[in-house]
Amino acid sequence: MDAMNLRLGIDIGGTNICAGILNAEYSIIERHSISIKGAGSEKEVLDAIRRCAWEIFDNAEKAGVNPRDIVSVGIGCPGAVDEAGRVVKSAANLPFRDTFLGDVLKPELGAPVYLSNDANTAALGEAVLGAGRGSESFVMITLGTGVGGGIVIDGRIHSGFNGYAGEIGHIIIDMHGRMCRCGQRGCLEAYASANALIRDTKEAMEGDRASLMWELAGTPDNVDGKTAFDAKRRGDKTAIKVIEAYSRGLSCGITSIIRILQPEVISIGGGLGREGEYLIDPVRTMVYENLRPERTPKITRLCAAELGTDAGVIGAGMLERGTRL
Amino acid sequence: MDAMNLRLGIDIGGTNICAGILNAEYSIIERHSISIKGAGSEKEVLDAIRRCAWEIFDNAEKAGVNPRDIVSVGIGCPGAVDEAGRVVKSAANLPFRDTFLGDVLKPELGAPVYLSNDANTAALGEAVLGAGRGSESFVMITLGTGVGGGIVIDGRIHSGFNGYAGEIGHIIIDMHGRMCRCGQRGCLEAYASANALIRDTKEAMEGDRASLMWELAGTPDNVDGKTAFDAKRRGDKTAIKVIEAYSRGLSCGITSIIRILQPEVISIGGGLGREGEYLIDPVRTMVYENLRPERTPKITRLCAAELGTDAGVIGAGMLERGTRL
Repeated sequence: MDAMNLRLGIDIGGTNICAGILNAEYSIIERHSISIKGAGSEKEVLDAIRRCAWEIFDNAEKAGVNPRDIVSVGIGCPGAVDEAGRVVKSAANLPFRDTFLGDVLKPELGAPVYLSNDANTAALGEAVLGAGRGSESFVMITLGTGVGGGIVIDGRIHSGFNGYAGEIGHIIIDMHGRMCRCGQRGCLEAYASANALIRDTKEAMEGDRASLMWELAGTPDNVDGKTAFDAKRRGDKTAIKVIEAYSRGLSCGITSIIRILQPEVISIGGGLGREGEYLIDPVRTMVYENLRPERTPKITRLCAAELGTDAGVIGAGMLERGTRL
Repeated sequence: MDAMNLRLGIDIGGTNICAGILNAEYSIIERHSISIKGAGSEKEVLDAIRRCAWEIFDNAEKAGVNPRDIVSVGIGCPGAVDEAGRVVKSAANLPFRDTFLGDVLKPELGAPVYLSNDANTAALGEAVLGAGRGSESFVMITLGTGVGGGIVIDGRIHSGFNGYAGEIGHIIIDMHGRMCRCGQRGCLEAYASANALIRDTKEAMEGDRASLMWELAGTPDNVDGKTAFDAKRRGDKTAIKVIEAYSRGLSCGITSIIRILQPEVISIGGGLGREGEYLIDPVRTMVYENLRPERTPKITRLCAAELGTDAGVIGAGMLERGTRL
């Protein structure tokens, strides 16, 4: 058996580190994750990454895998990674500041360690094995607390000259509109993130005491990204309006991405992405109304992400192939 | 003398065809242009392209150049070019409809003929020899009657999976804003084109009979893209407001391009681009306010295009190198 091409992918989140050992086809053959809730210092997080790696190696060895067969390690991390792929400049929810994350496991492993932004690695995984497989260009949109993105062209992450490309949450769709938490006015994220949807849902509930959303959520504090979708499913008129407005904002952002890049496929993932076609179908209609498909020979395919949270681990494991290093 | 690497670049506009013979360093060593004003049929334009090529060859021969040394021909054409680079699907101001423009000169010349959108070829020329030289990624913005764009990554045009990438005039910056002539609401072009600026200038003049712009333009019919800039130079308060609003719209579009692509350089050309730093300096300030440079290690450079109308001819001549064919 040709076991000689194993890769370790590590996806660092704000509360968890997920690791996976991938075989030569980039399938996950071993998984492990540990919590970093409460890890307050850089050292604590770096130690947790090392511990996660040792533990998955231990488990893998018990299952007959030789960790010496690991030919590369990839790490996806929130925040900004320098263009050389070694240093995390800063990360919103992690105690990293000019952290040499690319070197964290190298001395112990011998294998090269590649580093990229977590949205980029998730996009790479989806591009190669998920919703974007077979496409020449792919954009992944992640609708979570914020709105994230990653761009893959010809099988490689497009990270821009400074490592910050794909920040689609902060393209401007409404120049006279809402302030975003980033300090800029009119960002896509201020309309299409789960936070924005929750805010809009609560506001709409205040304006309609008879809305089914009161019954579903109980109190405004219990509103989440599903509340309006669930109420819409049951025909609630106020929820329909909330989702209509939400879809409109998202469709404008997607339209701009297509105008600039014309990727073959755009996939939508993240927490809200779990709504699947129930979210995507009306958004697709709005995007195609904007683009006028009759004017273009071929039009970007818009679909749900397929790999869920595995995308980050798989894409991290692919980094050797996916980066320009 | 190594004359063996000459290229013919042809830039097709709505009223003129410009051709240039480039040497191995892509310098124009021979130029020729002919008018196609009044050319009403596809055949008339194709004949004009051939005639332009024969005439530049004649001139070049007289100057001691052997047309047999032409190793490739590149054509930049308005409108949509199919992804194989042979067919112009349609072009707004030309009688082309599924026109096999890529084959127009091939039988006569023997040399391969490459075809791309004219905004893309101009971007390629600027990227390699003009404002973007030495950069790893480059976006050219052309502010003319409309707003056009071209993207060059790693020295190659990014035309998207269907040939339509770089349509930055139709990214959405104001989702509840102006209708664009394309039928979509809030397009950058509806705010940042010369047409938009002229409309805004006229409207502002109607609201301020004392504005210096009346003196400069005489009548609203004489207003052009320079009127408000010239009046601003002389301190006219209404013109200052017009240019401020114009710059705001443009800066939002540029911000979105940077968020998505993080190109190393963005250059601004076209008719309004001739204002140079007088246009760009306040736009740069607005863009950088959006981006918060303190958060990124390196920030996109924003500058004037350098090659003027030569960019199209030079980029067309480079197409062999610049396309993915």
